[in-house]
Amino acid sequence: MGESFGAWTMGRDAELMDYVSSVNIACGFHAGDASVIRKTIETAIVKNVAVGAHPSFPDLQGFGRREMKMPATEVFDIVLYQVAALKGMCEAFGGKLRHVKPHGALYNQAARDKNLAEAIAKAVKAIDENLVFYGLANSFLVSEAERIGLKTASEVFADRTYQADGTLTTRSQSNALIESVKKSCEQVLEMITAQTVTAVTGERVTLRADTVCIHGDGANALEFAREVKRSLEENGILIHTI
Amino acid sequence: MGESFGAWTMGRDAELMDYVSSVNIACGFHAGDASVIRKTIETAIVKNVAVGAHPSFPDLQGFGRREMKMPATEVFDIVLYQVAALKGMCEAFGGKLRHVKPHGALYNQAARDKNLAEAIAKAVKAIDENLVFYGLANSFLVSEAERIGLKTASEVFADRTYQADGTLTTRSQSNALIESVKKSCEQVLEMITAQTVTAVTGERVTLRADTVCIHGDGANALEFAREVKRSLEENGILIHTI
Amino acid sequence: MGESFGAWTMGRDAELMDYVSSVNIACGFHAGDASVIRKTIETAIVKNVAVGAHPSFPDLQGFGRREMKMPATEVFDIVLYQVAALKGMCEAFGGKLRHVKPHGALYNQAARDKNLAEAIAKAVKAIDENLVFYGLANSFLVSEAERIGLKTASEVFADRTYQADGTLTTRSQSNALIESVKKSCEQVLEMITAQTVTAVTGERVTLRADTVCIHGDGANALEFAREVKRSLEENGILIHTI
Amino acid sequence: MGESFGAWTMGRDAELMDYVSSVNIACGFHAGDASVIRKTIETAIVKNVAVGAHPSFPDLQGFGRREMKMPATEVFDIVLYQVAALKGMCEAFGGKLRHVKPHGALYNQAARDKNLAEAIAKAVKAIDENLVFYGLANSFLVSEAERIGLKTASEVFADRTYQADGTLTTRSQSNALIESVKKSCEQVLEMITAQTVTAVTGERVTLRADTVCIHGDGANALEFAREVKRSLEENGILIHTI
Repeated sequence: MGESFGAWTMGRDAELMDYVSSVNIACGFHAGDASVIRKTIETAIVKNVAVGAHPSFPDLQGFGRREMKMPATEVFDIVLYQVAALKGMCEAFGGKLRHVKPHGALYNQAARDKNLAEAIAKAVKAIDENLVFYGLANSFLVSEAERIGLKTASEVFADRTYQADGTLTTRSQSNALIESVKKSCEQVLEMITAQTVTAVTGERVTLRADTVCIHGDGANALEFAREVKRSLEENGILIHTI
Repeated sequence: MGESFGAWTMGRDAELMDYVSSVNIACGFHAGDASVIRKTIETAIVKNVAVGAHPSFPDLQGFGRREMKMPATEVFDIVLYQVAALKGMCEAFGGKLRHVKPHGALYNQAARDKNLAEAIAKAVKAIDENLVFYGLANSFLVSEAERIGLKTASEVFADRTYQADGTLTTRSQSNALIESVKKSCEQVLEMITAQTVTAVTGERVTLRADTVCIHGDGANALEFAREVKRSLEENGILIHTI
Repeated sequence: MGESFGAWTMGRDAELMDYVSSVNIACGFHAGDASVIRKTIETAIVKNVAVGAHPSFPDLQGFGRREMKMPATEVFDIVLYQVAALKGMCEAFGGKLRHVKPHGALYNQAARDKNLAEAIAKAVKAIDENLVFYGLANSFLVSEAERIGLKTASEVFADRTYQADGTLTTRSQSNALIESVKKSCEQVLEMITAQTVTAVTGERVTLRADTVCIHGDGANALEFAREVKRSLEENGILIHTI
Repeated sequence: MGESFGAWTMGRDAELMDYVSSVNIACGFHAGDASVIRKTIETAIVKNVAVGAHPSFPDLQGFGRREMKMPATEVFDIVLYQVAALKGMCEAFGGKLRHVKPHGALYNQAARDKNLAEAIAKAVKAIDENLVFYGLANSFLVSEAERIGLKTASEVFADRTYQADGTLTTRSQSNALIESVKKSCEQVLEMITAQTVTAVTGERVTLRADTVCIHGDGANALEFAREVKRSLEENGILIHTI
């Protein structure tokens, strides 16, 4: 959320907020200028969804999706800065920052790089030890955050396929994305109820599913969000904030 | 302070901190990346000087010194973002943000523009109503901040000359800067003890002097700071945090 | 044109090119990253429209629409850089840069500031003295460029209203924009055939109309472009490159 | 050269130009704003040294030294943009762009990545097929540029040590830099006269040495440049433009 920038708009944030319990708001490094962030926070408070910070590598033109080689100490610094900004802005409007989820390449690199994951988690803890840390299920993001004492939420994806080893199929592969809303709902239901996911190769892989990610910038993000929510509710599953 | 950026260094921050009681730290918009800010905060905490945020227009290449025409609501947003970032980062290291002083063109424009001054003051209050607001003595910065209930510090300049109406001589004029350390000390002494300043035209102008600004990027900033401090102490004036 | 940036898209450039004879391409300072610029140039060459550079103040977040106070020499430098980049990129694909039109606040400020207008025109001339300089009709942009020997095109606007003194109604006024396609076509026809425009107050003002601007980022830019073109052709007016 | 930015200065460019025959000028992506570039070009023309473009990844805060994962087509685009800007600016002052040398992480990554090297070389060729391409001796930069028909200059380093396989010792190792001017001169002499270099492990490695790089941002860059030049001249070696 909050991924517009200046004259450019992205996402239908306000509408999406009707179907989710928590949102991750860009912090200005990959998207989201100060005015966009402020408006998104105000909307989230009105819509009563939990606000999280979505810190990124400093890469506006690449939308934070390009891998960068930054020393862990510098990663600590940029996360500290971004999360601090979001936290203070939430509180300025009577809200509260609840969680942090790293964005894009920072998320993907840290999921498999213990030092990066530790640096991010430490920055989050330094800002507020009560923040919940969202990370890819089964990755260093979750294990490092837990190791230093943060509460974590293992994240699974509604619209991405999985490999037999539990990792996401990389976006460069043709079957990386789930484009059928129905299949997406089935995958989410399996992940939530059985805490497993069926890999593209057919194996059932165990994974912890605390939070389900729905990307806000997709063409039919709104439909996905609505249907996933309906499907969960029809199966008696309550969506709530962690 | 904290006006280095990436590979570029500016100022001798650590040394200057030996002669002042409070510092204004760049917030990333005109200078100061996240690592520079973090290091400067850590040093300030060790040196036991009061930390302030120094928010600016978004203008890295112009060092925040170019006037920009931004709506007051957007100014509110960028100040909110920058002050929030500094506050959170201070607290992450066990410190505390004490004050805010707008930087460069933002400071100068708001000094004479009531709406801008109000927008900045409201952003500061929204972040923390106990923050002290530093502004040009006799300007809208001070009056607007006071009007909305912030504690203020009227700022005077050690190295700038004044006009008969109490405003600073603009930098484009040849006599804008005081280059003699001795004259600078005399001006500071007059401002602190008599709460007046002698204008370039000879008149004595009344002005409130709560805090004295010494620029950190000048060639002989260190000498100015040391001598001003010595001169004040020799005259029995105690420098302390507001 | 070329006003997308990274993950953000703006405008329907390729379609619009079917209705115009020349386009102004963002140069990276208010919009348009290197990949966007390259693709836009390639499309323009295929569509056989004349390519112009659209240099701006350095202000991505403000889309170059915020007034900035920059010394004329620095304005010279940023125009030089941007026009040089566009020229070289055009030639790399076998094309040719034909004209330059300053963007946004740079255009508006220079229209009424002789020194800025001169600085921009001199930068354009330094890059290539055969470039046509597009500027607001009756403004310093046109007179300064002519004075230093550049060929100029006086620009009029299809979708903006005019004041009795020949200036554009400022965007902050409610009647600044013409939202009716029919009225817009009528205004263009009058400007082209009579070289006058009817001001909001009813006066007919003389103005030279060499080129008609249609903004690419409007919601119905495509419809405006198509109808203006059709209206001109129905009246026997040939649209061609200067 | 030209690696200052806004209020921040770096390097003693004008003085260094007395000791070298060619310079690489930052293009705005890792350093060098439009005014800095313009001034550096003017000085280079006066000092009669050959001007080259020094394009980089878009990374001001990291000074272009952080590895980034960018698709080859996007690398083509950013090199095209930067080299075009430098070429046009040189010609605006009656000069001529002679060569291109990629900067920092772009240089290092492309040295070992054939696709990146090809993308950069193709962008240079698209701008001007007579530009000389500077690349690390024995690397893909040189071989790819030669393969597509560019004239190349194999670059060796005065102040860096080499490994037995002919690669540079990475900066993270303690013996990466040669800090003794005398040793540096000896290494340069060996490289130029014998076209070999003695690796840190003692082996003599063959390498082609067409151009010797002296970094402009080092503390004693000036002394290195003067002594290397003197040492070469004492040994009857003429420094000249390629």
